[in-house]
Amino acid sequence: MPEVVFSVDQARSMRDQNVPGHNRWHPDIPAAATVRPGAEFRVECREWTDGQIGNNDSANDIRDVDLSPCHMLSGPIAVEGAEPGDLLVVDILDLGPIPQETGGIAGQGWGYTGIFAKQNGGGFLTDYYPDAYKAIWDFHGQQATSRHIPGVRFTGITHPGLFGTAPSPELLARWNAREQALIDTDPLRVPPLALPPLTDGTLAGTLTGDALAKVGAEGARTVPPRENGGNHDIKNFTRGSRVFYPVHVPGGMLSGGDLHFSQGDGEITFCGAIEMGGFIDFHVDIIKGGMEKYGVTTNPVFMPGNVEPRYSEFISFVGISVDHGTDTNHYNDATLAYRNACLNAIEYLKTFGYSGEQAYLLLGAAPIEGRVSGVVDIPNACCSLYLPTAIFDFDIRPTADGPRRADRGQCAVSS
Amino acid sequence: MPEVVFSVDQARSMRDQNVPGHNRWHPDIPAAATVRPGAEFRVECREWTDGQIGNNDSANDIRDVDLSPCHMLSGPIAVEGAEPGDLLVVDILDLGPIPQETGGIAGQGWGYTGIFAKQNGGGFLTDYYPDAYKAIWDFHGQQATSRHIPGVRFTGITHPGLFGTAPSPELLARWNAREQALIDTDPLRVPPLALPPLTDGTLAGTLTGDALAKVGAEGARTVPPRENGGNHDIKNFTRGSRVFYPVHVPGGMLSGGDLHFSQGDGEITFCGAIEMGGFIDFHVDIIKGGMEKYGVTTNPVFMPGNVEPRYSEFISFVGISVDHGTDTNHYNDATLAYRNACLNAIEYLKTFGYSGEQAYLLLGAAPIEGRVSGVVDIPNACCSLYLPTAIFDFDIRPTADGPRRADRGQCAVSS
Amino acid sequence: MPEVVFSVDQARSMRDQNVPGHNRWHPDIPAAATVRPGAEFRVECREWTDGQIGNNDSANDIRDVDLSPCHMLSGPIAVEGAEPGDLLVVDILDLGPIPQETGGIAGQGWGYTGIFAKQNGGGFLTDYYPDAYKAIWDFHGQQATSRHIPGVRFTGITHPGLFGTAPSPELLARWNAREQALIDTDPLRVPPLALPPLTDGTLAGTLTGDALAKVGAEGARTVPPRENGGNHDIKNFTRGSRVFYPVHVPGGMLSGGDLHFSQGDGEITFCGAIEMGGFIDFHVDIIKGGMEKYGVTTNPVFMPGNVEPRYSEFISFVGISVDHGTDTNHYNDATLAYRNACLNAIEYLKTFGYSGEQAYLLLGAAPIEGRVSGVVDIPNACCSLYLPTAIFDFDIRPTADGPRRADRGQCAVSS
Amino acid sequence: MPEVVFSVDQARSMRDQNVPGHNRWHPDIPAAATVRPGAEFRVECREWTDGQIGNNDSANDIRDVDLSPCHMLSGPIAVEGAEPGDLLVVDILDLGPIPQETGGIAGQGWGYTGIFAKQNGGGFLTDYYPDAYKAIWDFHGQQATSRHIPGVRFTGITHPGLFGTAPSPELLARWNAREQALIDTDPLRVPPLALPPLTDGTLAGTLTGDALAKVGAEGARTVPPRENGGNHDIKNFTRGSRVFYPVHVPGGMLSGGDLHFSQGDGEITFCGAIEMGGFIDFHVDIIKGGMEKYGVTTNPVFMPGNVEPRYSEFISFVGISVDHGTDTNHYNDATLAYRNACLNAIEYLKTFGYSGEQAYLLLGAAPIEGRVSGVVDIPNACCSLYLPTAIFDFDIRPTADGPRRADRGQCAVSS
Repeated sequence: MPEVVFSVDQARSMRDQNVPGHNRWHPDIPAAATVRPGAEFRVECREWTDGQIGNNDSANDIRDVDLSPCHMLSGPIAVEGAEPGDLLVVDILDLGPIPQETGGIAGQGWGYTGIFAKQNGGGFLTDYYPDAYKAIWDFHGQQATSRHIPGVRFTGITHPGLFGTAPSPELLARWNAREQALIDTDPLRVPPLALPPLTDGTLAGTLTGDALAKVGAEGARTVPPRENGGNHDIKNFTRGSRVFYPVHVPGGMLSGGDLHFSQGDGEITFCGAIEMGGFIDFHVDIIKGGMEKYGVTTNPVFMPGNVEPRYSEFISFVGISVDHGTDTNHYNDATLAYRNACLNAIEYLKTFGYSGEQAYLLLGAAPIEGRVSGVVDIPNACCSLYLPTAIFDFDIRPTADGPRRADRGQCAVSS
Repeated sequence: MPEVVFSVDQARSMRDQNVPGHNRWHPDIPAAATVRPGAEFRVECREWTDGQIGNNDSANDIRDVDLSPCHMLSGPIAVEGAEPGDLLVVDILDLGPIPQETGGIAGQGWGYTGIFAKQNGGGFLTDYYPDAYKAIWDFHGQQATSRHIPGVRFTGITHPGLFGTAPSPELLARWNAREQALIDTDPLRVPPLALPPLTDGTLAGTLTGDALAKVGAEGARTVPPRENGGNHDIKNFTRGSRVFYPVHVPGGMLSGGDLHFSQGDGEITFCGAIEMGGFIDFHVDIIKGGMEKYGVTTNPVFMPGNVEPRYSEFISFVGISVDHGTDTNHYNDATLAYRNACLNAIEYLKTFGYSGEQAYLLLGAAPIEGRVSGVVDIPNACCSLYLPTAIFDFDIRPTADGPRRADRGQCAVSS
Repeated sequence: MPEVVFSVDQARSMRDQNVPGHNRWHPDIPAAATVRPGAEFRVECREWTDGQIGNNDSANDIRDVDLSPCHMLSGPIAVEGAEPGDLLVVDILDLGPIPQETGGIAGQGWGYTGIFAKQNGGGFLTDYYPDAYKAIWDFHGQQATSRHIPGVRFTGITHPGLFGTAPSPELLARWNAREQALIDTDPLRVPPLALPPLTDGTLAGTLTGDALAKVGAEGARTVPPRENGGNHDIKNFTRGSRVFYPVHVPGGMLSGGDLHFSQGDGEITFCGAIEMGGFIDFHVDIIKGGMEKYGVTTNPVFMPGNVEPRYSEFISFVGISVDHGTDTNHYNDATLAYRNACLNAIEYLKTFGYSGEQAYLLLGAAPIEGRVSGVVDIPNACCSLYLPTAIFDFDIRPTADGPRRADRGQCAVSS
Repeated sequence: MPEVVFSVDQARSMRDQNVPGHNRWHPDIPAAATVRPGAEFRVECREWTDGQIGNNDSANDIRDVDLSPCHMLSGPIAVEGAEPGDLLVVDILDLGPIPQETGGIAGQGWGYTGIFAKQNGGGFLTDYYPDAYKAIWDFHGQQATSRHIPGVRFTGITHPGLFGTAPSPELLARWNAREQALIDTDPLRVPPLALPPLTDGTLAGTLTGDALAKVGAEGARTVPPRENGGNHDIKNFTRGSRVFYPVHVPGGMLSGGDLHFSQGDGEITFCGAIEMGGFIDFHVDIIKGGMEKYGVTTNPVFMPGNVEPRYSEFISFVGISVDHGTDTNHYNDATLAYRNACLNAIEYLKTFGYSGEQAYLLLGAAPIEGRVSGVVDIPNACCSLYLPTAIFDFDIRPTADGPRRADRGQCAVSS
């Protein structure tokens, strides 16, 4: 086990750790640890809500979740010698749930997937599923099952939802400007178009007083992915991956968390992965001047690992950029096309006895593939969704006999 | 070799075949052949432009292509007993280029990838690459190389770009209405938002006179995928795939063509696959009442085959829904996110010496994966693109030494 | 389609072709064609018995097969500039059954797997299954089914069983000496330990008279693999493979045939693959002095292709080097260990209702993996056999309910 | 983390644990713990020599290793309700090195591969490499590198070398009889043909006095795999695997250890895996009467997991059953064929600058495939060995330029 450079006592909030983490992106947040290029080290992580969600059969905690402290990140880790323009080479050597305990914090033998209520951010299908729901997943080594979605067992594609480097002041200012401009186009929208800086709940490592207030006033929220990496929610950042992060400040300042036991492409329920606290082991190195050398001007580049769960048979669903409810054609809209592919998959799963909510949660959590299949056949973008058949303990394929419908229970609902 | 139920003489236009195919979707187009459930049969196909593109080093033919006759489809094949509401089970047993000849028609040992000019439909990156370009690919069994993109050799993920069933009159009317409504929002846009029915160049099998004129006036263009399947351009419809098509008219009336030797997710150059004529072998069956049984209300469902080319190492690119040129944030726009992932990949490849056009053509043709990674982390959708490293004959991975830049020639350009 | 440099009229014996092939290894057999390094070309092949086996429900033809003319090979193809000590680089671009016909010759839409009778060579389990049996397989694109083994459908791992270069006179003499020495240890054994040269039935291209008689008297039989490649029966010589053959005579003199639609590791029924005639497309090149450069002193080196059928779930069987019938321990005998793994798999399949013969034929033909798992844990070698579960249309995995036994018919037997 | 039912303090010998394990197979060894069907639990393991091998640059410890205490196993674990004739369903949920420490015991961040001296058991190529050698591997998450074999980095295929159930007295007696009969055929052979019971060094859990002496006198050595499972050294018993063990005594009595960070097929250096102590997490269940239901009369059946490292390009080597040194032909001897494939691979690797010992160690440790390709083409069995090209940081494929030879250091040797 490599040296732990950021440690977490899971019995306490991130705010109460010996060295606290942070929940905003800002260049002023001081390094929690410093490592050298070539170092291997461990970072321990809280689950992203800092422990608000319980292992129970009610979705009230999902409905009532306070998003102001999210995501609770570990770091920043400064890498000696990293300078703006470099690429920070980050190998994800290993990651997993909280190793040594069982208990009430997600990651201690279990995790959860939530559908957020439309009033609280919503999810990808919030117009169809506006209420809060939850599924609890039990871990069995690398596999997961859920009492809320019976008949399913799959190998998780474990990965961090969120890691990134610190923005420079200039980059941060651009983020805030462009996102506020978007908000200003429809400031009262529910859910909102974007999330502006928020002082409430801000944590910035050891900063206090004015320094903390500055981070609260300026710090970018952690929800979207941006030029520093951030909340990619790319399920393929698995063990053995190598990520090349742009460096925007001296030391690079690597931070992250939001570990996922598994996730389907899109993370469609918003809190759609199987969320957990845990650990992640890194190796870091630097490519001097790598951004220019390799033409990296915006987002990170990466190479996925080679131990993703291997499935070979899929039942697949197609969506196009038409609003079928109103028969309205949108122009080459891959978001809508993928939404339709998801809805088509849910309707299919319902014929086997699952509720729509269960199917929605499953598509968020299981290692499904979501592909941009066609984005030139105007006016209809075409996306496709690949669901492994082997994750079901019954035959999910279409046959002349029709689907094997059964009572498949229900997920956790809100009261 | 199964019985050929739709044959093509590649020396002649689709219009001049003994039994001609068609290039619009319309329920009045008569069956070119009839098969029974359980049948295995072969359909021969023209390449989608009916032979307008040559094996040469000029992109003028791409620039000047006449789209009115496209796509030239083989069929319809009626399946006995298929009725509206059924699912037509279509196994893709085999497909490939034109088997017995060499010559000047795409599919005769070679194929092409084109970037359409902005004035003629454009492609996914038409604002960045508004002119016409072309790459010719030589076939070596299942592998392809191009004199226009040296240093690359890959196994094609061979598939039909376009197969579908005939629409009912009601469904056709809905298509025309919703697409016209979209066009009406910006009728002068270049390229257009959608393509309305077009009498010029219409081919409707053996129909002539008023019957042909009716198909020309009402028939849906073949470019977009719709509820009947159609031009999905899903690269995973490979050998061994099983597709479940909705049936909208008696007999189902299966038609198709637009065979691709290979294609990357998105088919980003519009004519982005490696286009070819050839053959496709089917087995068909019926699930009676399958649409209701399995909750299929819009698009087909499918199961991909198990002989896709196996690559295991990728260099991957990320895009988010920000217009980086103007620093404008768009809301959860997966189309824009994937466009940025493509642009990032192109910039990366340029550091090795490829022109942007070459890189663009390569991403359209090689078996790259395009994934909808995150569509809930507002405001930024996140898409990712996976480029197999093994298709290059040099090391494409980032290293401390920087990219191995070389003179890598140029694709075919227009004069 | 590349140029055909060795053509076969499947209506006629190999003996009656315009340019006949050969069925012995001998340096005197003249080149049937000559190609240059860098050439791509097609070779057409007879099935290995030259058409002795029919598409019917009797195994009498298997029982009575005349092995003296086997294997009927296409070639030799001389490669300009190849000299002893070089490596001949052979790319298998494509291969498949007889393309343009249906009919009575294996490869015309069907193939066969045979269990040879103990009196006629036997197979790997000949002490357990001493009689002749046969299964006919129907081709559906890349997939196969058999009326003789219902409930099974799989994607074939198509490959040539046999390709190789010509031996030098010295190498040929060594082969004959060492094989005769083996035969001499038990000359009356049934089946024999090895097959000496045999004049009867010898075909040596266009040679006649004394030249032919010399080949008959000296020519090595084609059954075993040797330093020239030969009858490897390695199922992984699939499309896209690259083989580096040692060159022992000027021109290399590449010959081969024995095409297999599919085969399991070991080819355990002897005629255990799905046998067929067909075509194979090659690209050739030379590495000058490659044998010494790469330390190749005996057998070819190769790189398998990347389109092998992708299965991801297996039921696996283990065997050790103990004769369980007599409780006799053999020392680190991988042959015996693999035989036991095969027998264990057969006993397992019998509990589902298959006959032992059906199971034996299936293991010979389906793309099963056979692995040398442990060869150091004295005294017991350990081999393992991996059977893809997805090839069965019922659940083949062990469950608490026990196997789903059914009447599964029977293979073709001899009268 | 599941409950630990067998715990190990890695600072102490297995003999000095609170509940010691055992190193012989015998039905009298009492259960160290009892679990119910459906239980999930952890077993901690010593590395197989109980800590005799150090992380240093001398192979003297390998040369001088005392095999009498090997393998040091954890267990037995009794499963309530298991009875002779049942199948014990054992899921390998997870396994890995020693989690919480760094230090001098294999598994604490490192492991080793050894070539045993011919005088001390030898390995698969002991006639070619009769002396002792060693390589130390450093763990980086799931990947390994070695200062003794530079230029190589691979993802380990982590698995237990040895797990099994207890033999019945009758089965044990048969083992002893048949192995002694083998030894008697050449009792003075070096290395010996098999290992008879050995009182010295016997550990039998908490047994002492006469009971311990009886186990020493009768207990089967742990080196070979047998009808109870045992030392399979099947590299595919990875995370997610399900093994169905025959039950021979009440409770089944599951024991094991010999964890491997990685191993190539064959474990050819004898101590050829990357050896380590660590932990393994199980789920167990029972199929009542499963041996008869599924025709399991000898060895376990298993289903491998789906997270094996994914490699897609291989350089492959072929061997046949000829002793090329003496030009002696053996009959269908897969052991010899695989030995030749290994020797051919070693000669190939030597042309790049590795010593033979380094190459031998690498083939033992890396996730190479060893296949029984043909065992019917008399007289020559044919085996093949698949080495992933991606594990090298230089191009290992044959090219016209010849191998990239470099100084690649040397492994640990004995003085």
